[in-house]
Parts: sequence; C-alpha cells; structure tokens
Amino acid sequence: MNTAQRAQLALLLEVASTPKPGNVDRAHDYPELRFEHFLAGAVGVSPGLTAAMEGDRVGRAFEAAVAGMAEQDGGNTQFGALLLVAPLVSTTSTARALTPETASTVVESTSVADACDFYRAFDHVEVAVDDPPDGMAALDVRRGSAAVSTLQDQQITLYDIMDASADRDGVAREWITGFDRSFDAADRIAARAGPIPDRAADVFLELLAEEPDTFIQTQHDKQTAVWASERALDALSGDPTPSVLADEFVEKEINPGTTADIIAAGLYIGLERGTIHV
Amino acid sequence: MNTAQRAQLALLLEVASTPKPGNVDRAHDYPELRFEHFLAGAVGVSPGLTAAMEGDRVGRAFEAAVAGMAEQDGGNTQFGALLLVAPLVSTTSTARALTPETASTVVESTSVADACDFYRAFDHVEVAVDDPPDGMAALDVRRGSAAVSTLQDQQITLYDIMDASADRDGVAREWITGFDRSFDAADRIAARAGPIPDRAADVFLELLAEEPDTFIQTQHDKQTAVWASERALDALSGDPTPSVLADEFVEKEINPGTTADIIAAGLYIGLERGTIHV
Repeated sequence: MNTAQRAQLALLLEVASTPKPGNVDRAHDYPELRFEHFLAGAVGVSPGLTAAMEGDRVGRAFEAAVAGMAEQDGGNTQFGALLLVAPLVSTTSTARALTPETASTVVESTSVADACDFYRAFDHVEVAVDDPPDGMAALDVRRGSAAVSTLQDQQITLYDIMDASADRDGVAREWITGFDRSFDAADRIAARAGPIPDRAADVFLELLAEEPDTFIQTQHDKQTAVWASERALDALSGDPTPSVLADEFVEKEINPGTTADIIAAGLYIGLERGTIHV
Repeated sequence: MNTAQRAQLALLLEVASTPKPGNVDRAHDYPELRFEHFLAGAVGVSPGLTAAMEGDRVGRAFEAAVAGMAEQDGGNTQFGALLLVAPLVSTTSTARALTPETASTVVESTSVADACDFYRAFDHVEVAVDDPPDGMAALDVRRGSAAVSTLQDQQITLYDIMDASADRDGVAREWITGFDRSFDAADRIAARAGPIPDRAADVFLELLAEEPDTFIQTQHDKQTAVWASERALDALSGDPTPSVLADEFVEKEINPGTTADIIAAGLYIGLERGTIHV
C-alpha cells in the first residue's frame, strides 16, 4: 500500500468510525448525504492524492482530489479532510519523515498558483463557508476561479489564505500550527487498543470536548459550537451516551465537520508513520 | 472515475450493504474479521484492478489484486469477489461493451499462465476451500505456487479450473455461465429505488433464497446451505426480519460469502454500464 492509498484508507476509516455525533458515519446517514457518497468520494480522490504523492504542487493535487471526490451526488464529502491530507501526502514526496516541521515547510512554501488551484476547487462542489470579512468580497472563496485574477494581482499564496482564516477555521489553523491537533489525534488513536474505528470515534469526542468545532460555528454560531463541545464533554462521562448525543446532534442539525476532518488527518498520519495498522 | 475505481467502489458498496445476513457489513463484524479489514482490502486492490483495466492478463491482474487485498490483518476479505470482478474489468480493456458474451470471451481465452497466477494467489491469503476430488491432490489450490509445474505439465488453463469447479463453487460457475447471476443482480439492483446499499441488501436476500450458497456448503455441508436459503426465503416474507436472520446466521457461523461475491460483481456491472449511480 502506497502513501496515496494510506490517505484513501484514512478517509474510509474516518467515515467508518462511529458514533461521531452529528457526522455521517458507519451508523448514521443524512437523507441526502449518505455513507455511500463518502465511499464514492474516497474512491474518487485517488488521482489527486497520487499526484500529491508524486510531488505535484499542493494546490493542484488538492484541486484534482476535490474534483474526483465530487463525482457523486451527495455533494461535499471530504473537502476539509483533503485540505489537511493533501499537504501531508505532499510532505512525504520531499521529506524523509512526516513531522510537524516537515509539514510546516511544505505549507509555508505554497505559492500564488496553489492559491488559484484552491479557489478553483470551489468550482467543483458547494462548501459551507462564512462570509468574507469587510472589504474582502473579491476574495470570497465562493467566487471560485473567478477570484484567480485578484489572487494574482495581490500575490496571495495559499498559506496566506490559511493564515488569514486561522482564527475562524480549524482546518486552516492546522496549516499554521504544524498540524498540531492532527498529530495529536494520531498519537491518541495509536495509543488505544481495539478496532481502529472505535478508537477514532473515542478520540473524536475528546477533541470536540476540548475545542469548539468551527464548522458548527459557520453553520450556526459560536454559542452553538461551545454548547456542542459541552455536550461532548458530558458524553465523555457517559451521560448522555455518545449514541444518544448523535441523535441529539442530528435532530438539531449540528455537524462537527472540522473535528472529523482532523480525525481523518490523524488516521492518515498514524497509517503513514506505521503507528496505526489495520 | 475510471473502470478500476468503479470496481473498487463496488467492493466498498458491497460491504456497506446491510443486512446481508452472515456477512461482515456496515452493521456487522466478526471478532477477527471486521469492516475495517474490508475497507483496507478494497484500498489494496487498486494496482491489480488497474492492471486488469490496462489489459494485463486476467490471472496476473487477479493475483496482484489479491496480494494488495491481503495487506491487512483480517485475512481473506474479497478473494471471491475479485475472481468475478477482475475478468469483468479485463473485459472492458478489449470489448466495446461489458456483456455476458464479451465477458465469456475473456474467461474462455485464459491460459495456463493465468492458471499459474491463480494458484500463486493462494500464497497470499488463506481461503476456505473444499478438498480436491480423488486423484486431484496435485491440483489442490492450497498448494499455491507449488502446483504450478503440474498445471504446466498438464496444460491446464484457468478456464479449465473454473469449469472443473463449477458444480461445487458458485463463483466458478459464473465463469461458465456468462456471469449469469452477476448480470441478473446488476439488473435487479438497478431496477430498485433508494440508497444503493439498501437495494443491494434486498437483492442479496433474493439471490440467497433462490440458490444455496456454495461457500456455506464448503464451510458446513449441503444441508446447511439449503436450510440457509429456506431461512432467506422466510426473511423475504418478513419472518424473521433480515436483521434477526443476520443474528441467527452469525450465531451459527453461517456465512453466505458466494452470494456476497455475486452482489459485488453485480454492483460493478451496474456502475460500469451506468445503470447504477452513487
């Protein structure tokens, strides 16, 4: 199994991990976004992840992975996970080891071209995002490839974009912090015993309890995100059980998607470093 | 998504389809053979299926797929399914359309070299098989690559092997009958509505009710296989429910694996022909 395959397996193990309250998982579907869409999404990412493994630039590999992911009818399945996994796979194409330092070197080296690729990725699939800050409408990611000339005029790199978004997007924050929580998730999953999906689901709940999920904040508000983390902390003590919490989140349409993305990245890191094995 | 990816997706959709009583599926594990092993198996088959898509000979592509599949700790996950899917993928490399006729042409053209590859595949993973007929000990598949010289001496092709096994192995029978039940499964899954895994699980139960599963026969005996099909017929009428039947089969260690293999092949055929779409 090569690096791109390990990344694909990480995406599959992530969606198999249950219960991950509020997310599609082995035991939970939404009516229009179901487990089968995540399977097809994970199959579709292969060419993009293979390009990353072979040293193509991060942005282009990411865009290709998203394009492949989007060839199913469910919509966005793994956009955020790929934004973490693609640069980590890229790291293995140049660095001897996958570490916070080598991954940081890769993301800090991204270019204006990578930023343009990133915006083009939004042409392939609808992604829930916040409105841009005042005066930044020209850089609204929802403009997709229409924003490319602005990026080029202002010489904005993909790292610049992530840096500017880090305070309100937990995926972008990983780019700035050496993939801190992703590496931590890998260590925690590796340290446990039992089936990998069970371990990943446990760590998901811990991460959610520790830090409000920025995807919930985008879809609802800060207060809801904080409340969801408090409920996750309750579930760690067993009341409610994680399964009951899953029903509660689905009912309230609360989807801690960023935390799931970090679990996917953690699974990939563990598979890549050999600390997690199926 | 290319042909090899569609085949990979078929394997994933098959194991996601639940309940498929007695099989690992989205809701059922065995202690040592779990959902995660099937995910890793499906990831591992890519190079072999890509070789089949690109026109490598059927046996070699199959052996490569099995070698990739076996890179996980659960043991045999998709050996039988690959024995159906690999020649079907190969068919697309030469034929304009995937039909019972073009698939038959491909399997009838297999060579002694393909037979040797097939035996080598048994070196990678332990597969439950019957004892060979009297006087055929030299061709026991469990000898793996040790049987290659016998195959060469006697000029036995892979089609010859399948032909000789067709009366007691439902996968081999597909090779001889133009993949009759696989194409039928594709049509039935395509004709239904709803999520693909739900449709595939329904068709699984129909196929099992219609014909005793040869894998059950191998692991237990003919009588048990006939009984399991009678229970599947009961479940089609709702008593027991398929979920209750699943528990009953797990308890009795009854695993209708051949029927699951045919569902995987049917899913691939439907995805390839565009009658099934995720």
